[in-house]
Amino acid sequence: MKLYDSKMAPNPRRVRIFMAEKGIDCENEQLDIVKGENLREEFLAINPRGMLPTLVLDDGTVIDETVAICRYIEETNPEPALMGTDAVNKAHVEARQRHMEWDGLLGAMDAFRNAFPGFKERGLGGSVGTVNAIPELVDRGKASLNRFYNNLDAALASQKYIAGDDFTIADITALCTIDFASGAARAPMPENLSNLKRWYQEVSDRPSAKA
Amino acid sequence: MKLYDSKMAPNPRRVRIFMAEKGIDCENEQLDIVKGENLREEFLAINPRGMLPTLVLDDGTVIDETVAICRYIEETNPEPALMGTDAVNKAHVEARQRHMEWDGLLGAMDAFRNAFPGFKERGLGGSVGTVNAIPELVDRGKASLNRFYNNLDAALASQKYIAGDDFTIADITALCTIDFASGAARAPMPENLSNLKRWYQEVSDRPSAKA
Repeated sequence: MKLYDSKMAPNPRRVRIFMAEKGIDCENEQLDIVKGENLREEFLAINPRGMLPTLVLDDGTVIDETVAICRYIEETNPEPALMGTDAVNKAHVEARQRHMEWDGLLGAMDAFRNAFPGFKERGLGGSVGTVNAIPELVDRGKASLNRFYNNLDAALASQKYIAGDDFTIADITALCTIDFASGAARAPMPENLSNLKRWYQEVSDRPSAKA
Repeated sequence: MKLYDSKMAPNPRRVRIFMAEKGIDCENEQLDIVKGENLREEFLAINPRGMLPTLVLDDGTVIDETVAICRYIEETNPEPALMGTDAVNKAHVEARQRHMEWDGLLGAMDAFRNAFPGFKERGLGGSVGTVNAIPELVDRGKASLNRFYNNLDAALASQKYIAGDDFTIADITALCTIDFASGAARAPMPENLSNLKRWYQEVSDRPSAKA
Protein backbone atom coordinates (compact mmCIF):
# COMPACT_ATOMS: atom_id res chain seq x y z
CA MET A 1 0.00 0.00 0.00
CA LYS A 2 1.01 3.63 -0.48
CA LEU A 3 0.46 6.68 1.71
CA TYR A 4 0.09 10.11 0.14
CA ASP A 5 1.55 12.19 2.89
CA SER A 6 2.80 15.63 3.87
CA LYS A 7 5.37 16.26 6.58
CA MET A 8 4.05 19.80 7.05
CA ALA A 9 0.49 18.95 8.15
CA PRO A 10 -0.98 17.43 11.31
CA ASN A 11 -3.44 14.95 9.79
CA PRO A 12 -0.89 12.90 7.84
CA ARG A 13 1.27 12.74 10.97
CA ARG A 14 -1.65 11.19 12.87
CA VAL A 15 -1.61 8.29 10.40
CA ARG A 16 2.18 7.96 10.42
CA ILE A 17 2.22 7.70 14.24
CA PHE A 18 -0.72 5.27 14.19
CA MET A 19 1.14 3.04 11.74
CA ALA A 20 4.41 3.30 13.68
CA GLU A 21 2.63 2.16 16.87
CA LYS A 22 1.43 -0.89 14.93
CA GLY A 23 4.88 -1.52 13.44
CA ILE A 24 3.63 -0.97 9.89
CA ASP A 25 5.59 0.64 7.12
CA CYS A 26 4.50 1.41 3.57
CA GLU A 27 5.41 3.29 0.42
CA ASN A 28 5.22 7.03 0.95
CA GLU A 29 4.85 10.01 -1.37
CA GLN A 30 5.31 13.54 -0.02
CA LEU A 31 3.14 16.35 -1.35
CA ASP A 32 3.79 20.03 -0.66
CA ILE A 33 0.47 21.53 0.45
CA VAL A 34 1.70 25.12 0.47
CA LYS A 35 2.71 24.75 -3.18
CA GLY A 36 -0.70 23.17 -3.81
CA GLU A 37 0.61 19.78 -4.95
CA ASN A 38 -2.49 18.23 -3.33
CA LEU A 39 -4.67 20.26 -5.71
CA ARG A 40 -2.96 19.15 -8.93
CA GLU A 41 -4.81 17.00 -11.43
CA GLU A 42 -2.58 13.99 -10.80
CA PHE A 43 -3.55 13.81 -7.12
CA LEU A 44 -7.20 14.85 -7.63
CA ALA A 45 -7.55 11.79 -9.88
CA ILE A 46 -6.80 9.71 -6.76
CA ASN A 47 -8.67 11.85 -4.20
CA PRO A 48 -11.03 14.42 -5.74
CA ARG A 49 -11.37 16.20 -2.36
CA GLY A 50 -7.64 16.99 -2.52
CA MET A 51 -7.08 16.08 1.12
CA LEU A 52 -4.12 14.40 2.82
CA PRO A 53 -3.43 11.79 4.05
CA THR A 54 -4.77 9.33 1.47
CA LEU A 55 -3.99 5.62 1.53
CA VAL A 56 -4.11 3.47 -1.60
CA LEU A 57 -4.25 -0.29 -1.05
CA ASP A 58 -2.47 -2.77 -3.31
CA ASP A 59 -5.75 -3.54 -5.13
CA GLY A 60 -6.26 0.17 -5.87
CA THR A 61 -8.85 0.84 -3.13
CA VAL A 62 -8.55 4.45 -1.95
CA ILE A 63 -9.13 5.41 1.69
CA ASP A 64 -9.20 9.18 1.70
CA GLU A 65 -9.69 10.26 5.29
CA THR A 66 -7.43 10.28 8.39
CA VAL A 67 -9.52 8.35 10.93
CA ALA A 68 -10.89 6.03 8.25
CA ILE A 69 -7.30 5.05 7.40
CA CYS A 70 -6.67 4.40 11.10
CA ARG A 71 -9.85 2.30 11.23
CA TYR A 72 -8.62 0.15 8.33
CA ILE A 73 -5.24 -0.34 10.00
CA GLU A 74 -6.90 -1.17 13.36
CA GLU A 75 -9.18 -3.75 11.72
CA THR A 76 -6.38 -5.44 9.80
CA ASN A 77 -3.74 -5.14 12.56
CA PRO A 78 -5.65 -5.26 15.87
CA GLU A 79 -2.60 -5.27 18.19
CA PRO A 80 -1.89 -3.10 20.04
CA ALA A 81 -5.48 -1.80 20.17
CA LEU A 82 -5.47 1.97 19.61
CA MET A 83 -9.23 2.48 19.14
CA GLY A 84 -10.55 0.73 22.23
CA THR A 85 -11.25 -2.81 23.40
CA ASP A 86 -14.85 -3.60 24.45
CA ALA A 87 -18.00 -1.68 23.47
CA VAL A 88 -17.81 0.89 26.27
CA ASN A 89 -14.09 1.45 25.86
CA LYS A 90 -14.38 1.79 22.06
CA ALA A 91 -17.09 4.41 22.58
CA HIS A 92 -15.00 6.25 25.17
CA VAL A 93 -11.89 6.31 22.97
CA GLU A 94 -13.97 7.52 20.02
CA ALA A 95 -15.52 10.25 22.16
CA ARG A 96 -12.13 11.43 23.42
CA GLN A 97 -10.56 11.29 19.95
CA ARG A 98 -13.42 13.39 18.58
CA HIS A 99 -13.15 15.84 21.50
CA MET A 100 -9.49 16.31 20.55
CA GLU A 101 -10.53 17.17 17.00
CA TRP A 102 -13.47 19.39 17.85
CA ASP A 103 -12.02 21.19 20.88
CA GLY A 104 -8.41 21.39 19.69
CA LEU A 105 -7.53 20.55 16.11
CA LEU A 106 -10.34 22.61 14.59
CA GLY A 107 -9.16 25.68 16.51
CA ALA A 108 -5.55 25.08 15.47
CA MET A 109 -6.60 24.77 11.83
CA ASP A 110 -8.60 28.01 12.08
CA ALA A 111 -5.73 29.83 13.79
CA PHE A 112 -3.26 28.71 11.12
CA ARG A 113 -5.21 28.82 7.87
CA ASN A 114 -6.72 32.25 8.49
CA ALA A 115 -3.38 33.85 9.43
CA PHE A 116 -0.94 32.23 6.98
CA PRO A 117 -0.42 34.66 4.06
CA GLY A 118 -0.10 31.83 1.53
CA PHE A 119 -3.62 30.64 2.38
CA LYS A 120 -5.47 33.96 2.21
CA GLU A 121 -7.71 32.49 -0.52
CA ARG A 122 -7.52 28.95 0.86
CA GLY A 123 -9.51 29.37 4.09
CA LEU A 124 -10.66 25.74 3.89
CA GLY A 125 -8.54 22.72 3.00
CA GLY A 126 -8.76 20.65 -0.17
CA SER A 127 -10.28 21.26 -3.58
CA VAL A 128 -13.00 23.73 -2.58
CA GLY A 129 -11.84 26.59 -4.79
CA THR A 130 -11.39 30.12 -3.50
CA VAL A 131 -12.45 30.54 0.14
CA ASN A 132 -11.27 33.79 1.68
CA ALA A 133 -9.56 33.69 5.06
CA ILE A 134 -11.57 35.18 7.94
CA PRO A 135 -9.10 36.93 10.28
CA GLU A 136 -11.52 36.76 13.27
CA LEU A 137 -11.10 32.97 13.23
CA VAL A 138 -7.47 33.36 14.31
CA ASP A 139 -8.41 34.71 17.75
CA ARG A 140 -11.37 32.34 18.05
CA GLY A 141 -9.07 29.41 17.27
CA LYS A 142 -6.45 30.55 19.78
CA ALA A 143 -9.12 30.94 22.48
CA SER A 144 -10.35 27.41 21.72
CA LEU A 145 -6.79 26.13 22.08
CA ASN A 146 -6.42 27.90 25.41
CA ARG A 147 -9.54 26.11 26.74
CA PHE A 148 -8.28 22.88 25.19
CA TYR A 149 -4.93 23.08 26.98
CA ASN A 150 -6.53 23.83 30.34
CA ASN A 151 -9.19 21.12 30.03
CA LEU A 152 -6.57 18.55 29.06
CA ASP A 153 -4.40 19.53 32.00
CA ALA A 154 -7.34 19.02 34.37
CA ALA A 155 -8.22 15.64 32.85
CA LEU A 156 -4.61 14.44 32.98
CA ALA A 157 -4.38 15.13 36.73
CA SER A 158 -6.14 11.81 37.38
CA GLN A 159 -5.29 9.63 34.40
CA LYS A 160 -2.18 8.57 32.51
CA TYR A 161 -3.48 9.02 28.96
CA ILE A 162 -6.28 11.00 27.35
CA ALA A 163 -8.77 8.14 27.27
CA GLY A 164 -7.58 6.46 30.50
CA ASP A 165 -4.86 3.92 31.26
CA ASP A 166 -3.85 3.10 27.71
CA PHE A 167 -2.24 5.03 24.87
CA THR A 168 -4.83 5.43 22.08
CA ILE A 169 -5.67 7.35 18.93
CA ALA A 170 -6.93 10.15 21.21
CA ASP A 171 -3.34 10.73 22.39
CA ILE A 172 -2.13 10.75 18.79
CA THR A 173 -4.69 13.39 17.78
CA ALA A 174 -3.86 15.50 20.83
CA LEU A 175 -0.10 15.30 20.26
CA CYS A 176 -0.36 16.25 16.58
CA THR A 177 -2.74 19.07 17.48
CA ILE A 178 -0.41 20.47 20.12
CA ASP A 179 2.71 20.34 17.96
CA PHE A 180 0.83 21.96 15.08
CA ALA A 181 -0.71 24.58 17.38
CA SER A 182 2.64 25.32 19.02
CA GLY A 183 4.37 25.73 15.67
CA ALA A 184 2.40 26.75 12.60
CA ALA A 185 -0.65 28.05 14.47
CA ARG A 186 1.44 30.12 16.93
CA ALA A 187 -0.57 29.10 20.00
CA PRO A 188 2.02 27.20 22.05
CA MET A 189 1.21 24.90 24.96
CA PRO A 190 1.55 26.92 28.20
CA GLU A 191 4.57 25.94 30.29
CA ASN A 192 2.73 26.04 33.63
CA LEU A 193 0.29 23.18 33.04
CA SER A 194 2.19 20.42 34.81
CA ASN A 195 -0.14 17.47 34.09
CA LEU A 196 -0.29 18.31 30.42
CA LYS A 197 3.48 18.77 30.34
CA ARG A 198 4.08 15.36 31.98
CA TRP A 199 1.80 13.66 29.43
CA TYR A 200 3.31 15.62 26.52
CA GLN A 201 6.82 14.53 27.47
CA GLU A 202 5.77 10.90 27.75
CA VAL A 203 3.99 10.68 24.39
CA SER A 204 6.70 12.72 22.66
CA ASP A 205 9.33 10.28 23.95
CA ARG A 206 7.63 7.31 22.28
CA PRO A 207 9.54 6.26 19.15
CA SER A 208 6.33 6.67 17.09
CA ALA A 209 6.34 10.44 17.73
CA LYS A 210 9.24 10.77 15.29
CA ALA A 211 7.18 9.23 12.46
CA MET B 1 -30.22 3.68 29.53
CA LYS B 2 -31.20 7.32 29.11
CA LEU B 3 -30.64 9.73 26.24
CA TYR B 4 -30.26 13.44 26.92
CA ASP B 5 -31.73 14.79 23.74
CA SER B 6 -32.96 17.90 21.94
CA LYS B 7 -35.52 17.84 19.17
CA MET B 8 -34.20 21.17 17.83
CA ALA B 9 -30.65 20.07 16.99
CA PRO B 10 -29.19 17.82 14.28
CA ASN B 11 -26.72 15.77 16.37
CA PRO B 12 -29.29 14.27 18.78
CA ARG B 13 -31.44 13.35 15.77
CA ARG B 14 -28.52 11.38 14.31
CA VAL B 15 -28.57 9.17 17.41
CA ARG B 16 -32.36 8.86 17.47
CA ILE B 17 -32.40 7.67 13.83
CA PHE B 18 -29.47 5.32 14.46
CA MET B 19 -31.33 3.75 17.40
CA ALA B 20 -34.59 3.54 15.44
CA GLU B 21 -32.82 1.65 12.64
CA LYS B 22 -31.62 -0.83 15.26
CA GLY B 23 -35.07 -1.06 16.87
CA ILE B 24 -33.82 0.34 20.18
CA ASP B 25 -35.79 2.59 22.47
CA CYS B 26 -34.69 4.18 25.73
CA GLU B 27 -35.60 6.78 28.32
CA ASN B 28 -35.41 10.29 26.89
CA GLU B 29 -35.03 13.74 28.40
CA GLN B 30 -35.48 16.82 26.23
CA LEU B 31 -33.31 19.88 26.83
CA ASP B 32 -33.96 23.28 25.26
CA ILE B 33 -30.62 24.44 23.81
CA VAL B 34 -31.86 27.94 22.90
CA LYS B 35 -32.85 28.46 26.54
CA GLY B 36 -29.44 27.10 27.53
CA GLU B 37 -30.75 24.08 29.48
CA ASN B 38 -27.67 22.18 28.28
CA LEU B 39 -25.49 24.73 30.09
CA ARG B 40 -27.18 24.44 33.48
CA GLU B 41 -25.35 22.96 36.43
CA GLU B 42 -27.56 19.89 36.56
CA PHE B 43 -26.60 18.82 33.04
CA LEU B 44 -22.96 19.94 33.27
CA ALA B 45 -22.63 17.54 36.22
CA ILE B 46 -23.37 14.76 33.69
CA ASN B 47 -21.51 16.19 30.70
CA PRO B 48 -19.14 19.07 31.54
CA ARG B 49 -18.79 19.96 27.85
CA GLY B 50 -22.53 20.77 27.80
CA MET B 51 -23.09 18.98 24.49
CA LEU B 52 -26.05 16.95 23.25
CA PRO B 53 -26.73 14.12 22.72
CA THR B 54 -25.40 12.36 25.81
CA LEU B 55 -26.19 8.75 26.66
CA VAL B 56 -26.08 7.42 30.23
CA LEU B 57 -25.93 3.65 30.60
CA ASP B 58 -27.71 1.80 33.40
CA ASP B 59 -24.45 1.51 35.37
CA GLY B 60 -23.93 5.28 35.16
CA THR B 61 -21.34 5.25 32.35
CA VAL B 62 -21.63 8.46 30.32
CA ILE B 63 -21.06 8.50 26.55
CA ASP B 64 -20.98 12.15 25.63
CA GLU B 65 -20.48 12.32 21.87
CA THR B 66 -22.74 11.59 18.88
CA VAL B 67 -20.66 9.10 16.89
CA ALA B 68 -19.29 7.50 20.06
CA ILE B 69 -22.89 6.76 21.12
CA CYS B 70 -23.53 5.22 17.70
CA ARG B 71 -20.33 3.15 18.07
CA TYR B 72 -21.57 1.78 21.41
CA ILE B 73 -24.96 0.89 19.91
CA GLU B 74 -23.29 -0.72 16.87
CA GLU B 75 -21.01 -2.82 19.08
CA THR B 76 -23.82 -3.99 21.35
CA ASN B 77 -26.46 -4.38 18.60
CA PRO B 78 -24.55 -5.30 15.43
CA GLU B 79 -27.59 -5.87 13.18
CA PRO B 80 -28.31 -4.21 10.85
CA ALA B 81 -24.72 -3.00 10.40
CA LEU B 82 -24.72 0.79 10.03
CA MET B 83 -20.96 1.39 10.35
CA GLY B 84 -19.65 -1.05 7.77
CA THR B 85 -18.95 -4.77 7.50
CA ASP B 86 -15.35 -5.80 6.69
CA ALA B 87 -12.19 -3.70 7.18
CA VAL B 88 -12.38 -1.90 3.83
CA ASN B 89 -16.11 -1.24 4.10
CA LYS B 90 -15.82 0.01 7.70
CA ALA B 91 -13.10 2.42 6.55
CA HIS B 92 -15.19 3.57 3.58
CA VAL B 93 -18.30 4.16 5.71
CA GLU B 94 -16.22 6.05 8.28
CA ALA B 95 -14.67 8.18 5.53
CA ARG B 96 -18.05 9.02 4.01
CA GLN B 97 -19.63 9.74 7.41
CA ARG B 98 -16.77 12.11 8.22
CA HIS B 99 -17.02 13.76 4.80
CA MET B 100 -20.68 14.46 5.60
CA GLU B 101 -19.65 16.17 8.83
CA TRP B 102 -16.71 18.10 7.47
CA ASP B 103 -18.15 19.10 4.08
CA GLY B 104 -21.76 19.60 5.18
CA LEU B 105 -22.65 19.66 8.87
CA LEU B 106 -19.83 22.02 9.83
CA GLY B 107 -21.01 24.55 7.21
CA ALA B 108 -24.62 24.21 8.36
CA MET B 109 -23.57 24.80 11.98
CA ASP B 110 -21.56 27.88 10.94
CA ALA B 111 -24.44 29.23 8.83
CA PHE B 112 -26.90 28.79 11.69
CA ARG B 113 -24.94 29.71 14.83
CA ASN B 114 -23.42 32.88 13.38
CA ALA B 115 -26.76 34.19 12.08
CA PHE B 116 -29.21 33.24 14.85
CA PRO B 117 -29.73 36.30 17.09
CA GLY B 118 -30.06 34.18 20.24
CA PHE B 119 -26.53 32.82 19.71
CA LYS B 120 -24.67 36.06 19.04
CA GLU B 121 -22.43 35.31 22.05
CA ARG B 122 -22.62 31.54 21.57
CA GLY B 123 -20.65 31.15 18.35
CA LEU B 124 -19.50 27.67 19.42
CA GLY B 125 -21.62 24.97 21.03
CA GLY B 126 -21.41 23.75 24.61
CA SER B 127 -19.88 25.18 27.78
CA VAL B 128 -17.17 27.32 26.19
CA GLY B 129 -18.32 30.63 27.64
CA THR B 130 -18.77 33.73 25.51
CA VAL B 131 -17.71 33.23 21.89
CA ASN B 132 -18.86 36.00 19.59
CA ALA B 133 -20.58 35.09 16.35
CA ILE B 134 -18.56 35.82 13.19
CA PRO B 135 -21.02 36.96 10.51
CA GLU B 136 -18.62 36.07 7.63
CA LEU B 137 -19.05 32.42 8.60
CA VAL B 138 -22.68 32.51 7.45
CA ASP B 139 -21.74 32.98 3.80
CA ARG B 140 -18.78 30.61 4.09
CA GLY B 141 -21.09 27.97 5.57
CA LYS B 142 -23.71 28.46 2.85
CA ALA B 143 -21.04 28.17 0.15
CA SER B 144 -19.82 24.93 1.74
CA LEU B 145 -23.38 23.60 1.71
CA ASN B 146 -23.75 24.50 -1.96
CA ARG B 147 -20.63 22.45 -2.81
CA PHE B 148 -21.89 19.68 -0.51
CA TYR B 149 -25.24 19.44 -2.29
CA ASN B 150 -23.65 19.34 -5.73
CA ASN B 151 -20.98 16.80 -4.77
CA LEU B 152 -23.61 14.54 -3.19
CA ASP B 153 -25.78 14.77 -6.28
CA ALA B 154 -22.84 13.71 -8.46
CA ALA B 155 -21.96 10.78 -6.15
CA LEU B 156 -25.58 9.60 -5.99
CA ALA B 157 -25.80 9.35 -9.79
CA SER B 158 -24.05 5.99 -9.61
CA GLN B 159 -24.90 4.61 -6.18
CA LYS B 160 -28.01 4.04 -4.10
CA TYR B 161 -26.71 5.35 -0.78
CA ILE B 162 -23.92 7.65 0.32
CA ALA B 163 -21.42 4.89 1.09
CA GLY B 164 -22.60 2.49 -1.63
CA ASP B 165 -25.34 -0.16 -1.76
CA ASP B 166 -26.35 -0.09 1.90
CA PHE B 167 -27.95 2.48 4.17
CA THR B 168 -25.36 3.54 6.79
CA ILE B 169 -24.51 6.17 9.37
CA ALA B 170 -23.25 8.33 6.48
CA ASP B 171 -26.85 8.60 5.19
CA ILE B 172 -28.05 9.51 8.67
CA THR B 173 -25.49 12.31 9.01
CA ALA B 174 -26.32 13.62 5.53
CA LEU B 175 -30.09 13.56 6.13
CA CYS B 176 -29.81 15.38 9.46
CA THR B 177 -27.42 17.90 7.91
CA ILE B 178 -29.76 18.62 5.00
CA ASP B 179 -32.89 19.02 7.12
CA PHE B 180 -30.99 21.30 9.52
CA ALA B 181 -29.44 23.26 6.65
CA SER B 182 -32.79 23.59 4.87
CA GLY B 183 -34.53 24.80 8.03
CA ALA B 184 -32.55 26.53 10.76
CA ALA B 185 -29.51 27.33 8.62
CA ARG B 186 -31.59 28.74 5.73
CA ALA B 187 -29.59 27.00 3.01
CA PRO B 188 -32.17 24.66 1.48
CA MET B 189 -31.37 21.72 -0.77
CA PRO B 190 -31.70 22.88 -4.41
CA GLU B 191 -34.73 21.44 -6.20
CA ASN B 192 -32.89 20.71 -9.46
CA LEU B 193 -30.46 18.07 -8.19
CA SER B 194 -32.37 14.97 -9.23
CA ASN B 195 -30.05 12.28 -7.82
CA LEU B 196 -29.89 13.98 -4.46
CA LYS B 197 -33.67 14.46 -4.49
CA ARG B 198 -34.25 10.75 -5.25
CA TRP B 199 -31.99 9.73 -2.34
CA TYR B 200 -33.49 12.34 0.00
CA GLN B 201 -37.00 11.07 -0.68
CA GLU B 202 -35.96 7.47 -0.04
CA VAL B 203 -34.19 8.08 3.24
CA SER B 204 -36.89 10.48 4.44
CA ASP B 205 -39.53 7.81 3.79
CA ARG B 206 -37.83 5.33 6.14
CA PRO B 207 -39.74 5.07 9.45
CA SER B 208 -36.52 5.97 11.32
CA ALA B 209 -36.52 9.48 9.78
CA LYS B 210 -39.42 10.40 12.08
CA ALA B 211 -37.36 9.58 15.19
